[in-house]
Amino acid sequence: MKIYRYPERKIWSELVKRPVFEREEISGLITEIFEAVEKNGDKALVGFNKKFDKAVTPEITVSAEELENAENAVPENLKKAIKQAKENITKFHTAQKTQTEKIETAKGVICWRENRAVEKVGIYIPGGTAPLFSTVLMLAVPANLAGCQEIILCTPPDRNGNINPAILFTAKLCGITKIFKTGGAQAIAAMTLGTESIPAVYKIFGPGNQFVVAAKEYAQRYGVAVDMPAGPSEVLVIADGKAVPDFCAADLLSQAEHGSDSQVVFITTDAKIFTGTIEAVEKQIIKLPRNEMARQSLQNSLFILTSSLEDALDFSNLYAPEHLILALENFENYIPGIRNAGSVFLGNYSCESAGDYASGTNHTLPTNAYAKNYSGVSLDSFVKKITFQHLSREGLKSIGKTIEIMAEAEGLIAHKNAVSIRLK
Amino acid sequence: MKIYRYPERKIWSELVKRPVFEREEISGLITEIFEAVEKNGDKALVGFNKKFDKAVTPEITVSAEELENAENAVPENLKKAIKQAKENITKFHTAQKTQTEKIETAKGVICWRENRAVEKVGIYIPGGTAPLFSTVLMLAVPANLAGCQEIILCTPPDRNGNINPAILFTAKLCGITKIFKTGGAQAIAAMTLGTESIPAVYKIFGPGNQFVVAAKEYAQRYGVAVDMPAGPSEVLVIADGKAVPDFCAADLLSQAEHGSDSQVVFITTDAKIFTGTIEAVEKQIIKLPRNEMARQSLQNSLFILTSSLEDALDFSNLYAPEHLILALENFENYIPGIRNAGSVFLGNYSCESAGDYASGTNHTLPTNAYAKNYSGVSLDSFVKKITFQHLSREGLKSIGKTIEIMAEAEGLIAHKNAVSIRLK
Repeated sequence: MKIYRYPERKIWSELVKRPVFEREEISGLITEIFEAVEKNGDKALVGFNKKFDKAVTPEITVSAEELENAENAVPENLKKAIKQAKENITKFHTAQKTQTEKIETAKGVICWRENRAVEKVGIYIPGGTAPLFSTVLMLAVPANLAGCQEIILCTPPDRNGNINPAILFTAKLCGITKIFKTGGAQAIAAMTLGTESIPAVYKIFGPGNQFVVAAKEYAQRYGVAVDMPAGPSEVLVIADGKAVPDFCAADLLSQAEHGSDSQVVFITTDAKIFTGTIEAVEKQIIKLPRNEMARQSLQNSLFILTSSLEDALDFSNLYAPEHLILALENFENYIPGIRNAGSVFLGNYSCESAGDYASGTNHTLPTNAYAKNYSGVSLDSFVKKITFQHLSREGLKSIGKTIEIMAEAEGLIAHKNAVSIRLK
Repeated sequence: MKIYRYPERKIWSELVKRPVFEREEISGLITEIFEAVEKNGDKALVGFNKKFDKAVTPEITVSAEELENAENAVPENLKKAIKQAKENITKFHTAQKTQTEKIETAKGVICWRENRAVEKVGIYIPGGTAPLFSTVLMLAVPANLAGCQEIILCTPPDRNGNINPAILFTAKLCGITKIFKTGGAQAIAAMTLGTESIPAVYKIFGPGNQFVVAAKEYAQRYGVAVDMPAGPSEVLVIADGKAVPDFCAADLLSQAEHGSDSQVVFITTDAKIFTGTIEAVEKQIIKLPRNEMARQSLQNSLFILTSSLEDALDFSNLYAPEHLILALENFENYIPGIRNAGSVFLGNYSCESAGDYASGTNHTLPTNAYAKNYSGVSLDSFVKKITFQHLSREGLKSIGKTIEIMAEAEGLIAHKNAVSIRLK
């Protein structure tokens, strides 16, 4: 833990810096993987499964039988929980649908926007220590609501060549049946380039390790879009004297357990809450199964005592956290002052894990200070907004002169002619 | 012109291919420019102005006096035109504002989204043959509506070290007073890294040549966002027997005059309109001041005769044009079938130049088939949408079990604890 009492503003820009991620070292490997997938398709993927995941997968496509078996393998209470979460996520994302509103910008000139789904999208779900079936919900639900025609999912197999049943169950629940056993950079390459089994998509979503992140960056050279740039997960908690140290500590630890590079920041104006939360962290961490990971993450964590909540909010805006918890009595007063954050949790009962799973908001959020210039995933991420305009002859007359004068001043005479020839 | 009569579907994927842009050759130069700007700031920019633009600019910041003089140098009728265009663009983009809607996803769980402006944005306006003051409107108007706190503009000086007065006038009209004389990759580097005069921004907008495009791509390594990937401008016109060949030709040429790499596609089901439009192009091109540029562009243009409008629309969706003109009598019937396009122009009087300048829609649009996965610039491009959630104690009770079960199944016990400790 790094503890700061009333740090001067001039050192804030140092404090908000994230650890730098070394990218150059792996770029050669990414290029090689893309080349192999482009050249050998499915065969390359089978090879990478063996090489990187120690898995034998003669078929990379998940079979109908595997999907069926997964259904039976997931406990009923987990199924029920996944369904409730899906319902809440569906409610919140359905409310993001927008109506077409036609605007008459000038007499006879009607303009509007219409949404169209990105036709083909790919979802990547990492393997590793935690089977992130919750991320399947967060990406598949809005993809379906948007009306994407083709939604595919790639995720790495375990050593037995299997996919975690909860991931398969959730995918099927969301209507996704094209699921492929491939992970890491090779999965991104496959969704970008297409193989015999895996269709190429227009946009790729989902979290991953540094290889996946680098591959998503590289994939953009091929015209594919991605959800957003990525970095380690983060939480920043702002607490006042009415906060509960045990709750704050639990939130900080739920971030810290994600990985040794997780970012955890605690800011309070209350000296008692400050020491109380530090003590509560020490007490709670012992009981965690992932306490070693959490402890590593906490080494880089910031615990800051500030003289005012305004200072705390200023620091938060500079940091631009992925998750911001306002453990404040009068949290309403501070909402307008939030300028940069991914998702905000208000009051003592809005723990971050509520948003991670089931409140209905999306947990795919901008990290690494990208909350300054990116939004989290929403229904918008799965659609394009196309603008339309209809001008009647009168409409063109009403703005024709303006177009002609501007086009001529920009030296674009053919642009002018397109008006003149119509109004002649 | 490349002329195809009833081309088979199997060759369509060849026909929709854009010319490939060689990127590797200039990446070394981009890195050098970023390093020079990072090291030497304003001094580097002054040097690049001399080297690349043959301009002596002891000051790179446009002075209040220069802004004042520009106002006097712009003819009254042009000022009036710019103001009318601004008004229409403002109307259309104002209608893109969204209301905050709070959703109760489960009892006691309230979720919503709020918009926050990207605090610092940079607008790049190219120099060269056409002074694109219209692009100033297209970017500055929504930036202002969004509430961006800092809006800066970079554009290259002419050989006398001056900026085109129409650009300065338009910028000032939109309330932009921080204008800097720097162009190309160095302008993008300056807005990314900051210099003594130029503040670093969070998001960069605007068109440019291949150096600007490559620099915008490179800038993203520093955490800056950009409006969208870029490519040469395009139009695709679909015409039926009621279209007017002279109008179609004028629209095709207004695209062709943009540059020798502009993409022009004409599709019709009517053999007379087909030959008529080809003839009209030949007739009109002679009179254009930029006819050499237009002629080069037309060499790669596609003129396609199809057997049905459905085929024409299918081709268009595969091509995913930046601009799509439906010169069709019953254009309404074909709107639902448009899946991929940047902006659509309906009927015989909606010429592309209307949208380029004054209908109110934005002319910063996805090219190079990016209409498959990107929207054009809108108010959304200048804001982030932050999600909020408030759970009462009852709210956490109503979804707590779901969170606990899911967190445990993902192996994230601290996530579970954050709920359990609150409900104990």
